[in-house]
Parts: sequence; structure tokens; C-alpha cells
Amino acid sequence: MNDQDLKSVTKLKVRFHECDPLQIVWHGNYFKYFEEGREDFSRRHGISYLDAKKNGFATPIVKTECEHKLPLEYGDDFQVETFFVNSEAAKIIFQYRIISSGKLICTGQTVQVFIDKNSELVLNNPLFFLDWKKKMGLIK
Amino acid sequence: MNDQDLKSVTKLKVRFHECDPLQIVWHGNYFKYFEEGREDFSRRHGISYLDAKKNGFATPIVKTECEHKLPLEYGDDFQVETFFVNSEAAKIIFQYRIISSGKLICTGQTVQVFIDKNSELVLNNPLFFLDWKKKMGLIK
Amino acid sequence: MNDQDLKSVTKLKVRFHECDPLQIVWHGNYFKYFEEGREDFSRRHGISYLDAKKNGFATPIVKTECEHKLPLEYGDDFQVETFFVNSEAAKIIFQYRIISSGKLICTGQTVQVFIDKNSELVLNNPLFFLDWKKKMGLIK
Amino acid sequence: MNDQDLKSVTKLKVRFHECDPLQIVWHGNYFKYFEEGREDFSRRHGISYLDAKKNGFATPIVKTECEHKLPLEYGDDFQVETFFVNSEAAKIIFQYRIISSGKLICTGQTVQVFIDKNSELVLNNPLFFLDWKKKMGLIK
Repeated sequence: MNDQDLKSVTKLKVRFHECDPLQIVWHGNYFKYFEEGREDFSRRHGISYLDAKKNGFATPIVKTECEHKLPLEYGDDFQVETFFVNSEAAKIIFQYRIISSGKLICTGQTVQVFIDKNSELVLNNPLFFLDWKKKMGLIK
Repeated sequence: MNDQDLKSVTKLKVRFHECDPLQIVWHGNYFKYFEEGREDFSRRHGISYLDAKKNGFATPIVKTECEHKLPLEYGDDFQVETFFVNSEAAKIIFQYRIISSGKLICTGQTVQVFIDKNSELVLNNPLFFLDWKKKMGLIK
Repeated sequence: MNDQDLKSVTKLKVRFHECDPLQIVWHGNYFKYFEEGREDFSRRHGISYLDAKKNGFATPIVKTECEHKLPLEYGDDFQVETFFVNSEAAKIIFQYRIISSGKLICTGQTVQVFIDKNSELVLNNPLFFLDWKKKMGLIK
Repeated sequence: MNDQDLKSVTKLKVRFHECDPLQIVWHGNYFKYFEEGREDFSRRHGISYLDAKKNGFATPIVKTECEHKLPLEYGDDFQVETFFVNSEAAKIIFQYRIISSGKLICTGQTVQVFIDKNSELVLNNPLFFLDWKKKMGLIK
């Protein structure tokens, strides 16, 4: 995660039903925030799970991680920073950073793979994904 | 809701992530409990949304209601009682009662309709549903 | 619900994890949207569950209802209209209308009561709530 | 994760509202299953977040991970195996394995730390936790 990376910033506010009896956001809900960041990234940068679908691929999540530094509470404003990791592997890797009032709340990562119409794992990057990378200046 | 009705009883326990900062189950989560009751009823009494699907119907929920009497807290054991309301209309109506330690926690209702393959509302009960009602002794 | 009522309008977008295998928003998630509408109303009009708390009251939800007209799908933009119902009873009643692309998606209602520090139901409107109503021109 | 470890096995069934438009369990919901496994472990082996609380400690989750091998679908029966990792550090580490029809669905891990009444991170294992470990034969 560095600021030269292709990224997006999504501004959100903690909702009441996302908090648990400890008065903080329940840990599993951060993956909802990461998803909102990822969707927002996809809309802004012109790529989405619907593009993959249109091209005959599913892109299931195969790995998720989150490291918590500080809690968020009901009503807190925060931003999800979503970074695209330009990997050579046939994977879609995003890293996330959640910031609130200038403080680091958590970091995270999701890894997606490509599955073709026969439910087989795709070992090389699909063309539509390489085209998108070229368009974004990530590869030549 | 009376005990002669066709019903099922589903035993559950409140999970931590279902509770909110007031230390009680978040009100919207009762519809998850009702769904568990409804699914359990369907398995026990041999009818499910998959049967409807197989017969070419979707059964979307068009109305939900819940009246809360007492809260549930983390770790509480409770049971969902799911009652089938034998309506003449082309609707699937369930009523629910949640009981914990002998006390009434809440009551609720869901109403589902039948939608055919052309996305049209079905005004008469589909055959597969009438057959099921006959088998259960609800109609002749 | 009429347009002279005290209301707020909250713009939202359907998130992926809010949708179910039928490709539509899971019915119970509408209560999350209503909550976002209610919180937004409270922020805009200067009243919140934290005000109630500061004044020694809890305001649990005792009744929820939703009537579904049309489904929402992943990515849909919609707005929650939250209307304050000016009841004389010691209750906080909100009605909701969700609109997307000019179409009515659903309507709903939530009812909250006031509980004092001794966990007793309050039968008359608390002063802080009457003061707020006066400030908003809802009573004299 | 090996079978000599202190563990628990929790049997569950996938609920409709836990599945997403891809007809599979939404990836973030696996942390709910892990939580159910962890709570179940705690009840069976006599330790819980309430014990920690009673002794003046909070035990927030500071790290979560999940690796997905195969998806779960609506109605699938599965079991969560929750393994206690006997670390020397002042941490509560659980590893998880979800199995359905004899197949590995996913593995995961959660890490919790101890926070004292002054909101300070505790660097040595609290006495109540060491006592529990002794009782379980994990340390001498």
C-alpha cells in the first residue's frame, strides 16, 4: 500500500446495527467495508465482477485477512482506502486501509481468482483483465 | 396461532454478532430467526422454496411484521414456533412466536405470494401447493 | 406519509452482501435501510437515541413492519424517505418509503417506546421529547 | 491444527440469508461460523469472554484470516472444528476448519489479546487464563 498505487477512497459512517455489545464494530463487519471499498474502486476504475461475468469468468474470493489496530464506534466517520496490487499471477488482489480521524483503524487484504465456465481455475490472466491493466497503465 | 395449527418448533441460541450496543438482539435480526423457523418448518413438513422453484414459481416475501415484548440477550436459549396459517388466498402465511425461559419475546408474521415464470402474480393457488395442503389434511 | 410531514431523504446504493440467492435484497435487510433513514433523520433534525440516553431513557423498538412492492437488486440506487408521525402517544413512530428510479419499492413503519432508568415503560412523553417537538413546530 | 489439540466440533446448516447472488455463502459470513465455533468451544471447555470480563479484561480480536477452498451453498450441513493454539504469548489464538460432506471448505484463524481496565494491552497472560490452561492440562 503506497500512494502511487491505483486506489480509491470511500467515505462511510458506522451504522448502529454494525456494532456489537462491546459498543464497537463487530470484527466480521470490516469485510463489508472492504467490499464497499472494492465495489467503489471497481466503479471508479471501470472494472467489476459483472465485467468478469460477461466475459465468462467468476472471481470468487479465496483469501481474506484483517488486522485491527483501533476500534470504530457507532456514528464514527471513516474512509476505506482500496489499493490494487499489481500482481503477475492470475489473481485480483486488493489491500485495504481504514482511517478515522487521522488514525489507522485496520488493514486488510482480499485475494480473488478466476474460474471459467467449466468451473476450472484459470492459471493465466484472462484477456479482458490484461486489457484493463493496459488501459490503466499497469502493464505495457 | 393456536396449538392445533400445523407448526414447528426450532431451538436456537443468541449469537454474539446478533446483539447490538444495547446488549440485546438487534430488532432486524428477528427476521433471521423467523427465516430459520420457516426453513425448519419446510424441511419437517416437506415443502420448501426449492419445491416452488422446481414447479416454476418464485415465492417472494411481500410483507413482514414483528411485535417485540421482551428483549433477548447474548447466550439466551430460545425457541421459534412457526405456525402455518391456512388461508384460502394464493398466499403462504406464517406466524411466529419466540419464547425464552417460558416468556413471550415477540410475535411476527410473513406473507409470501406466488410469481410465475413470466414474473406475473399468481391469483390461484398452484397445484403443487394444493397437493401439499391435501397431504397435510388442511383441505379436502 | 405526506410531503408536509417532517421528513428526511437518504440516498443509498445496494451492496453485494445485502443480496440473496434470488439476486435481490434479502427482505430483512430493509430494516437496515430504515435504520439508516432514521439515523439520518435524527442527525438532520437534531434528535437521536443518544439524546434519549443522556436524558435517562432508552427507546427500544417494539414494532416493525415492511410491505414489499418491487425488489431491489445489486448496485441499484435508491432513496429512503423517513417520515416522522406526530403521535400524541408516548411513542416515536417513523414511516418509511423506499423509491428507486421513480418506482415505489416498499413502505414500512417502526414504533419505539420510552423506558426509564428503572426499566419501566413511560406513559407520558418525556420533557426532552416535547421540547424537541416544540422546536420543530409540531406542537405549541 | 491436529487432532491431539484441544478442540470442539460444532454442527451447523447454511441459512438462506447467509448466501449471496452467486448462490454461495458470502465470504464474510464465515467469520460468523468461526464465532459460533469459538463460542461453542468456550462453553464446552469452560472459558468465555464473560470470564475475561468478570476478571477485568476485554479480549478484542486483533487479527482474522480465512482461506477458502470450496463454497458452501444454501441448506448444506457442515461442521466447524475449532482448535485452541497453545501459544506462550499473551494471546488467545484459535484455528478453524470447516468440513462439509467430508470435504475441506475453508480454514481460518482469529487472534485475541487482553486489554485491562485502563485500556492497556496486557503483555503477560492473566492469572485466570493461566489457571484455565493448567486445568486443561495445557501447561504445568
